[in-house]
Amino acid sequence: MTDHTPAPVETESRTNALWGGRFASGPAEVMERINPSIDFDRRLWREDILGSKAHAEMLVAQGIISAEDGAAIAQGLDDIWGEIESGQFKFSRALEDIHMNVESRLRELINEPAGRLHTGRSRNDQVALDMKLWTRGAIDDLEVELKALQAALIGQAEQHTDTVMPGFTHLQVAQPVTFGHHLLAYTEMFGRDRSRLADARKRLNESPLGAAALAGTPYPIDRHRTASALGFDRPAANSLDAVSDRDFALELAAAAGICATHLSRLAEELVLWTTQQFRFVRLSDAFSTGSSIMPQKRNADAAELVRGKAGRVLGAFTALAVVMKGLPLAYGKDMQEDKEPLFDAVDTLGLCIAATAGMIADMQANPAAMRQAVEAGFPTATDLADWLVREAGVPFRDAHHVSGSLVKQAETRGCGLADLPLDVMKAAHPALDERIYAVVSVEASVNARTSFGGTAPVRVREQVAAARQRFLDGDGS
Amino acid sequence: MTDHTPAPVETESRTNALWGGRFASGPAEVMERINPSIDFDRRLWREDILGSKAHAEMLVAQGIISAEDGAAIAQGLDDIWGEIESGQFKFSRALEDIHMNVESRLRELINEPAGRLHTGRSRNDQVALDMKLWTRGAIDDLEVELKALQAALIGQAEQHTDTVMPGFTHLQVAQPVTFGHHLLAYTEMFGRDRSRLADARKRLNESPLGAAALAGTPYPIDRHRTASALGFDRPAANSLDAVSDRDFALELAAAAGICATHLSRLAEELVLWTTQQFRFVRLSDAFSTGSSIMPQKRNADAAELVRGKAGRVLGAFTALAVVMKGLPLAYGKDMQEDKEPLFDAVDTLGLCIAATAGMIADMQANPAAMRQAVEAGFPTATDLADWLVREAGVPFRDAHHVSGSLVKQAETRGCGLADLPLDVMKAAHPALDERIYAVVSVEASVNARTSFGGTAPVRVREQVAAARQRFLDGDGS
Amino acid sequence: MTDHTPAPVETESRTNALWGGRFASGPAEVMERINPSIDFDRRLWREDILGSKAHAEMLVAQGIISAEDGAAIAQGLDDIWGEIESGQFKFSRALEDIHMNVESRLRELINEPAGRLHTGRSRNDQVALDMKLWTRGAIDDLEVELKALQAALIGQAEQHTDTVMPGFTHLQVAQPVTFGHHLLAYTEMFGRDRSRLADARKRLNESPLGAAALAGTPYPIDRHRTASALGFDRPAANSLDAVSDRDFALELAAAAGICATHLSRLAEELVLWTTQQFRFVRLSDAFSTGSSIMPQKRNADAAELVRGKAGRVLGAFTALAVVMKGLPLAYGKDMQEDKEPLFDAVDTLGLCIAATAGMIADMQANPAAMRQAVEAGFPTATDLADWLVREAGVPFRDAHHVSGSLVKQAETRGCGLADLPLDVMKAAHPALDERIYAVVSVEASVNARTSFGGTAPVRVREQVAAARQRFLDGDGS
Amino acid sequence: MTDHTPAPVETESRTNALWGGRFASGPAEVMERINPSIDFDRRLWREDILGSKAHAEMLVAQGIISAEDGAAIAQGLDDIWGEIESGQFKFSRALEDIHMNVESRLRELINEPAGRLHTGRSRNDQVALDMKLWTRGAIDDLEVELKALQAALIGQAEQHTDTVMPGFTHLQVAQPVTFGHHLLAYTEMFGRDRSRLADARKRLNESPLGAAALAGTPYPIDRHRTASALGFDRPAANSLDAVSDRDFALELAAAAGICATHLSRLAEELVLWTTQQFRFVRLSDAFSTGSSIMPQKRNADAAELVRGKAGRVLGAFTALAVVMKGLPLAYGKDMQEDKEPLFDAVDTLGLCIAATAGMIADMQANPAAMRQAVEAGFPTATDLADWLVREAGVPFRDAHHVSGSLVKQAETRGCGLADLPLDVMKAAHPALDERIYAVVSVEASVNARTSFGGTAPVRVREQVAAARQRFLDGDGS
Repeated sequence: MTDHTPAPVETESRTNALWGGRFASGPAEVMERINPSIDFDRRLWREDILGSKAHAEMLVAQGIISAEDGAAIAQGLDDIWGEIESGQFKFSRALEDIHMNVESRLRELINEPAGRLHTGRSRNDQVALDMKLWTRGAIDDLEVELKALQAALIGQAEQHTDTVMPGFTHLQVAQPVTFGHHLLAYTEMFGRDRSRLADARKRLNESPLGAAALAGTPYPIDRHRTASALGFDRPAANSLDAVSDRDFALELAAAAGICATHLSRLAEELVLWTTQQFRFVRLSDAFSTGSSIMPQKRNADAAELVRGKAGRVLGAFTALAVVMKGLPLAYGKDMQEDKEPLFDAVDTLGLCIAATAGMIADMQANPAAMRQAVEAGFPTATDLADWLVREAGVPFRDAHHVSGSLVKQAETRGCGLADLPLDVMKAAHPALDERIYAVVSVEASVNARTSFGGTAPVRVREQVAAARQRFLDGDGS
Repeated sequence: MTDHTPAPVETESRTNALWGGRFASGPAEVMERINPSIDFDRRLWREDILGSKAHAEMLVAQGIISAEDGAAIAQGLDDIWGEIESGQFKFSRALEDIHMNVESRLRELINEPAGRLHTGRSRNDQVALDMKLWTRGAIDDLEVELKALQAALIGQAEQHTDTVMPGFTHLQVAQPVTFGHHLLAYTEMFGRDRSRLADARKRLNESPLGAAALAGTPYPIDRHRTASALGFDRPAANSLDAVSDRDFALELAAAAGICATHLSRLAEELVLWTTQQFRFVRLSDAFSTGSSIMPQKRNADAAELVRGKAGRVLGAFTALAVVMKGLPLAYGKDMQEDKEPLFDAVDTLGLCIAATAGMIADMQANPAAMRQAVEAGFPTATDLADWLVREAGVPFRDAHHVSGSLVKQAETRGCGLADLPLDVMKAAHPALDERIYAVVSVEASVNARTSFGGTAPVRVREQVAAARQRFLDGDGS
Repeated sequence: MTDHTPAPVETESRTNALWGGRFASGPAEVMERINPSIDFDRRLWREDILGSKAHAEMLVAQGIISAEDGAAIAQGLDDIWGEIESGQFKFSRALEDIHMNVESRLRELINEPAGRLHTGRSRNDQVALDMKLWTRGAIDDLEVELKALQAALIGQAEQHTDTVMPGFTHLQVAQPVTFGHHLLAYTEMFGRDRSRLADARKRLNESPLGAAALAGTPYPIDRHRTASALGFDRPAANSLDAVSDRDFALELAAAAGICATHLSRLAEELVLWTTQQFRFVRLSDAFSTGSSIMPQKRNADAAELVRGKAGRVLGAFTALAVVMKGLPLAYGKDMQEDKEPLFDAVDTLGLCIAATAGMIADMQANPAAMRQAVEAGFPTATDLADWLVREAGVPFRDAHHVSGSLVKQAETRGCGLADLPLDVMKAAHPALDERIYAVVSVEASVNARTSFGGTAPVRVREQVAAARQRFLDGDGS
Repeated sequence: MTDHTPAPVETESRTNALWGGRFASGPAEVMERINPSIDFDRRLWREDILGSKAHAEMLVAQGIISAEDGAAIAQGLDDIWGEIESGQFKFSRALEDIHMNVESRLRELINEPAGRLHTGRSRNDQVALDMKLWTRGAIDDLEVELKALQAALIGQAEQHTDTVMPGFTHLQVAQPVTFGHHLLAYTEMFGRDRSRLADARKRLNESPLGAAALAGTPYPIDRHRTASALGFDRPAANSLDAVSDRDFALELAAAAGICATHLSRLAEELVLWTTQQFRFVRLSDAFSTGSSIMPQKRNADAAELVRGKAGRVLGAFTALAVVMKGLPLAYGKDMQEDKEPLFDAVDTLGLCIAATAGMIADMQANPAAMRQAVEAGFPTATDLADWLVREAGVPFRDAHHVSGSLVKQAETRGCGLADLPLDVMKAAHPALDERIYAVVSVEASVNARTSFGGTAPVRVREQVAAARQRFLDGDGS
């Protein structure tokens, strides 16, 4: 993610407002607290300067401002970039937002030509531009992070294509699966998350610059030129739409929220798997925490935080949607509220992805514990039923009844299905014979599930290779 | 949208549970109320039958069941389709869900072969399949409805490429725009909504069928064949993922929520525009309502409902996200809660789109009222400032001050900018001369904004043509 | 909960609108789908009739209508009550809502006097009244259900005041607690939920009746009389507020959402406790379900549904809040959207409470499994540290280090703390002696925690008694 | 609100973890970013120190620590208070949270006795305590701010008890109301908001201190003493509940969200009222903003921000609810996510209340514009109908038809109801005579609505007095 700019914001009482002398008195104190956005939108400084440079360059090319003015503006903006990067820039709350902070400093640095930079644009298209550029960058960063998470998952999956664990439904032991297979399920989910991000990126990639306040501008600007210079596919086709909508922010927040629910599910599993009761994996010391009061504790704090932080990402979507609900066109100040939720959603998601990737990469699986758990759960009862269907032509529903009755007997005897004597088997259904003991073993069950996408090690090895190719070597989509 | 099935659900006490004899006693009364899904999932009957037919056909092709059994199953399923369509089918709560209702009836109709249909699948992949098919169909329906809405907007825009109205920011008169331009802004938004739906459709279009309970199946099924038969691009690559995730439902709910905020904004404008204060448009009688107590009222009820219904669509996303948060793999019963919110979000959105399309198509614009409003708001103050920049080389910020002072004078005099005497103009800035009166006219302002995407009629006419081509003739993306 | 009215709604094309002849043409087809509320607000029939009866009785008392008219109205309303209750009443979508359905039928039954019933009121105060009455009744029902749930919890707690289980933090074994103590934690939560409902009830209990459309009425009505007749504490003090706000619905939805998160937590625990890995409790057959494909399964479906349904309750709050956001006064049609989310939230919560009460009342604890789990987790490491503080004056942070090192040794040896030889103990800290073996036993640990609200059986028995008195014998607050 | 602590947090690599030597390696870098809470929980420093002082004082009183140790602890904590207040305190991320930052500094200042402070408590009850104290303080602050807002509303209402404006339903002119009456509607809403806060405060006012990690403590602590010292009504009755639940945070977030929707409605009205189209009020310069590009603009930015910020408050509730959904007892690290959303919701709400109070106090009503708007809207059509009911015994529904037909005629003629000739009146209904012209005047309409809570000036004056007494002189409930 783009970092927060560390330089502090100066609080000064507003001496000259941006909109000049029609107002007899200055803003109320509470206005000075509620109105400025510089505390959070200074994070957009890079985007703001890049946008201004592209705009100035176009103004020169179109003959709207002189080459000299253009050069002065470019140099001034570069200087400001340097000042902000080095922490020397003084952000001022009186100047409200990042746009006016930069422009005001530009005026100090280069005087009159600074006033010409704003020709043919407005803060409305400027802020839309900055937000789109930032959102695009955030998507690119998240893409990289998700890929790293997929790499961690695929790495572990590769080591555990043959490690048998209980597959759960309703958190009850259902059928044996391989640990690699289980981890690859998440690789698929994060693959769709990447694809959602990529789609959102494509959709937002139209430049609002030049929409001006809302209606376009009488200056002979070239919106295609600035669009291209800033990496957009094209300029937005309608100036009112360009300054009025924030669906790109909503879409990213929604995609982030969906990804966060995926992460929360993996986090829940990590919490479960590291309990005394499951012991399926052990997180590295680097991702475990202790207790200030209970010396024996080894907590999966990071997993819990990832699980919990789904809340704030989803809350950001709610917040943004409520902001936009019922707003008439074009720009309304409500839309200033688009920034903090989106920034927080992106920061939070990035952190959660990184933490999850770290946990996954470092974790140690415990195949013995997985094996013990799978043996205890009658997970091959379905295999027994399936065998009756296949070998004896019994309709599945009937075979299910037979198998269920044998599970009940095994439960009563406190043994596994494979431990039931053959006469008990035969009493349940006469077609059952010695061959069934091979079927109800955990290995047999896993190895048999060779349908496409199934859990058989042979399939999982193929899936690992395919996932590596699609997600790590390819473009992730 | 696919209709609700009207046939009522029979309430009978459960006599034989699906899972046979391992349970000593039947379900509690409250269990019978909380557990069954047939009251809402019977809506999936078409999808369920289509999925079963494709599955059975594949089982025959693979030699897993006999051609005779396959034919019996297909015939039985067709009969059931007829029974449901004609309202004769008796849905039973004791049979829990649509899958068991259909299967149980199939057994009644064709006896033993019915039991073989379930070979190599489970209710887990079956319900995932049904939901994906339904979601895909819902997307297709919404696409058509959004296109009709765009057609209504483009139709009105075409009639009003030259109709001048106030463009608002902060709901204050900002600059003159054309009504056609304003309406096309929404066409863009709904275009992106369509594109979001199309992306969601592509992403979900992988078949879960054959993932079985969670681990795949030992039967030699052909998942590519069923995927293809049901219009999927491919089978899902991981069986655990295929039965565990509902991100496709979340994605549609999110896209619906974003679209609903767009609709809520247009609805807000319709409510405003039809007030006594604005009178910009008049809804047709067909979309207006009166009051049971106040005889003079003419309310835009439908617009208010569209605005309000954004709530339930967004609420559906919240509901679904909360359901999925923190769920371990694979299938959990929580996921039965995916249906009602998604169904409601889709129904609600479809209704809102249709109502909006109807209101837009029928509405009568009131150019005189728009004109009066735009004249009253000093909307060309920016043009005056721009002129000073262009013609007299005044930096924009200074020109803004000059223009602001003239607005203040006009406000005091109770006149428009164009009504100020020339000496007053000149006193504000010496460069102002007679030519300025042409600039500060509303027509001049609008006609001048010829930048790409701008509000000048010449541009709007181009936008209308382009929108028609992209959204109505093309594929909408 | 008040039941849904089973009688179907008749769909007929609208022939005479309620608001008479100012409209040249009838409503559009989509208007007829989006506008009427009778499909869901007929559920308010009892409230509507009760309100009308109280209103009519007051009109007579104030001399606004004649006693004869009042008697006819009362009789007609009673007849309608009977018709609806017996399912004979024909609800009509053309008549839009429950108010007009009832009034229209009244006119059929008693002719002219029916027209006088609406004197001094409007649909705006009428629907506010109906919703408040319904909400009040829903709160009363939920109160009773929560009390039953508390009774189930207290009943189980009483049986398990001495049953030791692991207390978890971060789902890691932390310290031994008693099962009774654990269950009583939820009794406290549901106690606060009841208290929240009681507060909401008090706050809403002001009558909107007589606020009329929004401004009050010129008729000499007596709002105190109708308020009192309908069980309100007083009439609402401002007629605009009375018809404009729905904070009572939002408040109930929020309280329901908070209660639903409590239920989701207990549900999560039930899901965990019934796994093969925990086996702390066994749900009764009445609350367990099997699998259609896996014969060995025994799923806690109801617990999962309760956990998941928190989503729709929280979604209802989101929905309602979005509806109300940014609505100008007074009544807007958006507010018709208050009903379905609130109805669904209340129904869902009621069902979840009942299902949870049933599961809790029926469940069988497994003290042996709990005991085994607690022994395995070094839960008395804190006790060892505490002993060092108490008996040897070691600062806690140092004692924590000593205890942690002993846990590490026990982990390595694969034994419990109590199994470490004394010389190992002494090597960790010289003050450790034979007495420590009494301290690190699970019973000693539990018995020692006698602080108020602590887990010692002596305390838990007191808590059971106190909970019984506060929540079951008292008024729950 | 309690201020943010300005002192920066030091970032140092963690050298000695709090939980000692059982961990072979230190935390991962991403762990150091995701795990610490000191960046936001240092805001709880006052609460943390106050809680520790009360705890230490009790430990002395109970003879658990010596008086000397107690005195040293108290002195050390006072010194730390001073250091933090003056900005000298160095917060360290390596020390994770406010609790360890304070404790660690205490150890530096007073050495060994610092270690005894943690006797009989844990970070789990400590953080629950801090959060409850903070929440209580936040409620008290919000109460004061809401009261100031009510004072501003009542002040304006008092000046406008007789100022007539259009009362709207569906944003269509409905009936005349007085501006004072309209403003008092919000006073009622904010009164209920205060009452909700007061209830939440009462409910949360049980002390978690002494619940320790989750199970209570073997030390002979006196929880009633610390509860009383910290202003709680009593200690929480169940130690597991005390450290596990955050319903008090959810309840405040929900109450804040409801209040924020109220504020958003008033803000919407301010935005509408200050448009060129309405001109009902003029905000002071102190609460108006201009445009950097459009010199004529006068925007109600603060109102728009208040309207928009409802989003983040509601988002906070969503976030918190998602965090808590499905968490097993007792403390989980997820719950660290309770702080930022709650802090932000409270800060945001406080700011919105203050901004609204400022706007309301300063605004200038424009009675002439209100009057013009009300005359234009046929708002007395109901009065005409009512007169027919009263004077001529016409059933209301019929009178409504008569009045509607007259409105239609007036619309056609472009005049008001009062301008229709008598013969036109009589043609509509023979009972209409000269007296009707007095009835259909706006003043007559307003003056007639004398029902309790109605808009007649005589009633509004009573309401002003009553509101002043209930909300400003009384305790607000």
